[in-house]
Amino acid sequence: MFNQKIVASLAKSSMIRAMFEAGAKLKAQYGEENVFDFSLGNPEIEPPVPVQESLKKYVNSATPGLHYYMSNAGFEDVREKVAAHLQKKSGAPLTKDHILMVCGAAAGMNIALKALLNAGEEVIVLAPFFVEYLSYIENADGKPVIVNTEKGTFHIDVEAVKRSITPKTKAIILNSPNNPTGVVYSRESLENLRTALEEKEKEFGTSIFVLSDEPYVSIVYDGVEVPNMMSVFKNCVIIYSFSKSHALPGERIGYVAASSRIDDVGTLMGAMITLNRTLGFVNAPALFQKVVAENLDVAVDTAFYQENRDILYNHITSVGFECVKPSGAFYLWMKSPIEDDVAFCQTAQKYNLLIVPGSGFGCPGYARIAYCYGTEMIKRSLKAFTNLAKEYGLI
Amino acid sequence: MFNQKIVASLAKSSMIRAMFEAGAKLKAQYGEENVFDFSLGNPEIEPPVPVQESLKKYVNSATPGLHYYMSNAGFEDVREKVAAHLQKKSGAPLTKDHILMVCGAAAGMNIALKALLNAGEEVIVLAPFFVEYLSYIENADGKPVIVNTEKGTFHIDVEAVKRSITPKTKAIILNSPNNPTGVVYSRESLENLRTALEEKEKEFGTSIFVLSDEPYVSIVYDGVEVPNMMSVFKNCVIIYSFSKSHALPGERIGYVAASSRIDDVGTLMGAMITLNRTLGFVNAPALFQKVVAENLDVAVDTAFYQENRDILYNHITSVGFECVKPSGAFYLWMKSPIEDDVAFCQTAQKYNLLIVPGSGFGCPGYARIAYCYGTEMIKRSLKAFTNLAKEYGLI
Repeated sequence: MFNQKIVASLAKSSMIRAMFEAGAKLKAQYGEENVFDFSLGNPEIEPPVPVQESLKKYVNSATPGLHYYMSNAGFEDVREKVAAHLQKKSGAPLTKDHILMVCGAAAGMNIALKALLNAGEEVIVLAPFFVEYLSYIENADGKPVIVNTEKGTFHIDVEAVKRSITPKTKAIILNSPNNPTGVVYSRESLENLRTALEEKEKEFGTSIFVLSDEPYVSIVYDGVEVPNMMSVFKNCVIIYSFSKSHALPGERIGYVAASSRIDDVGTLMGAMITLNRTLGFVNAPALFQKVVAENLDVAVDTAFYQENRDILYNHITSVGFECVKPSGAFYLWMKSPIEDDVAFCQTAQKYNLLIVPGSGFGCPGYARIAYCYGTEMIKRSLKAFTNLAKEYGLI
Repeated sequence: MFNQKIVASLAKSSMIRAMFEAGAKLKAQYGEENVFDFSLGNPEIEPPVPVQESLKKYVNSATPGLHYYMSNAGFEDVREKVAAHLQKKSGAPLTKDHILMVCGAAAGMNIALKALLNAGEEVIVLAPFFVEYLSYIENADGKPVIVNTEKGTFHIDVEAVKRSITPKTKAIILNSPNNPTGVVYSRESLENLRTALEEKEKEFGTSIFVLSDEPYVSIVYDGVEVPNMMSVFKNCVIIYSFSKSHALPGERIGYVAASSRIDDVGTLMGAMITLNRTLGFVNAPALFQKVVAENLDVAVDTAFYQENRDILYNHITSVGFECVKPSGAFYLWMKSPIEDDVAFCQTAQKYNLLIVPGSGFGCPGYARIAYCYGTEMIKRSLKAFTNLAKEYGLI
């Protein structure tokens, strides 16, 4: 009776969300404090103080017109501030006409993909990946082409990317710092990727767009550099979300920025602004546009995440699990001690540990641990990881 | 290089928005106060005081977790309140499991259509109509079937609807009070429509869903009844927006409510919740979910709109224009004195009057006047309407 494709997909719905439900049950049974829920990337921290102050200022002043419609592109003054901020970071000339305010990165990805893709065109996705990318590409009638990253390091396998490019390749999605691996791509590897893309663009007479999904760009550790994607790639579209950097995931606020070096960038922006309306987003929430515009240089305290990372990474590797040390974001990407990562994560539930199978990210044999939760919970969970390691004879 | 369909549509983009741009130019030339801009349904009023008080309360209390992700369906307590509110209005049993909080009605329409339609299925749209419906149906791979309303009255032509139903008809969109005509459908005409739908469902062995787009349901005049759609139709999905009733259009907040009488309504809700995520909306903005839930019985002062309606309706009919007297919403639907409504609206611009051609609503020969603006502006505009009437020899 309903959309058959959607109904069929309900059964095998997002594993991350399935964990969320399982977690709720365990919590009801054992009590909130005895369940160690690492399943969702839902930061348990409040927005930075300057963000909260801006929010109060706008709401208490009851600025007339604050909640009206504005241009589908967003408030002009907000877009000007975002453009100036990005220009400072990228060194590339940008104006408000390169900026579209959107309802979060998921909205931005859908808009950018729909604006770029003709039916059947291909989008390269690097595995492991945020699984919703596949839905977004499908929404735009595109075809995902999955390319594995380098085994063990999860850095870009430039040669593999190059081999996967066809005349139908329209875009590649990059996500650095990466969800789920925590890897940050180096400038060198991005420059190698650029060379590969340029060669193929020349060979096929096409343009290949880099869609850079950057919600974690301000969450990095140990002084690692996150190269600005616009400074590397000509055909670059940045999709930014304030969910993580400003701890505002429930408010759905972000932006899309198109490089001024893109040929006919005005048409691309026009298409995206129209799609913001016709896909049903209409505009980014008004109040939070104003709030984030005043806080573009603000970000949550990375020390909090770094402490979590260190405690958890040191412990799980000390009890015998293999794990990439994350340079950014707030995820640990751990090798499953058995091939069947789904079975492994089910076993973890015996110890009230909720972690997500790598299969949910197009990469079986691994599991993702989101460590954006209170440090006390993380400390209390360590014993459960020890017991899980014992179960698999790692110690 | 980009999506060819979107790029082609950019040229013939929304006439409403084109007026918006033309208006900006006239305002720059003649000064804001000398241009009478009736083009957009962007209410120039602030949210009701209780809404502003709730907003302040939440923001100033800095409620922990207020800006976190919640279930894609929305906060549980918010959905419970919406269900109780609607149950009271419709008399139909409803729980939180029938409610999905969404980023405004445009989001809700996209989600509902995508959940219902298989590729190529048909959706009946009554002309004149809000033009974006066609995009929403296309986004869901559906086929719009346009059926005219009754000539002159713009009420539902039930026989015409009945004739247009095929085995592929999956839904009909209703919008009462109507944009652009201001017409409110009577209980009798809705019951006649129900009978017609039921006959055809029986004949074809299908289910036809009523998608009731209701942003204007609380803006009615002269004590007119707006029948609750769930009390009339079994397969009813209500799409509600707080943009107009709570004067929050920039904040993108609304809900979808599915009737508990729909067969397998749980699957429909599951599909819509998943689509809220995969289409890129993720969830309705957190803060405003909480704010509207405390103000479900609140609405803007209709007296303001009624005064505007009366002043404008009385004047334009007194100078010889033909116009349906609106029973709800905040639009006047005026007959163009010449066949070419686009030329008529261009002529109106000579008098600094910005009104939108009926062609933009699938109904040439008419024009829409949005009267959600300050009463002073409306009073100042009357002379321009007189001059426009003179130009066409009406007086």
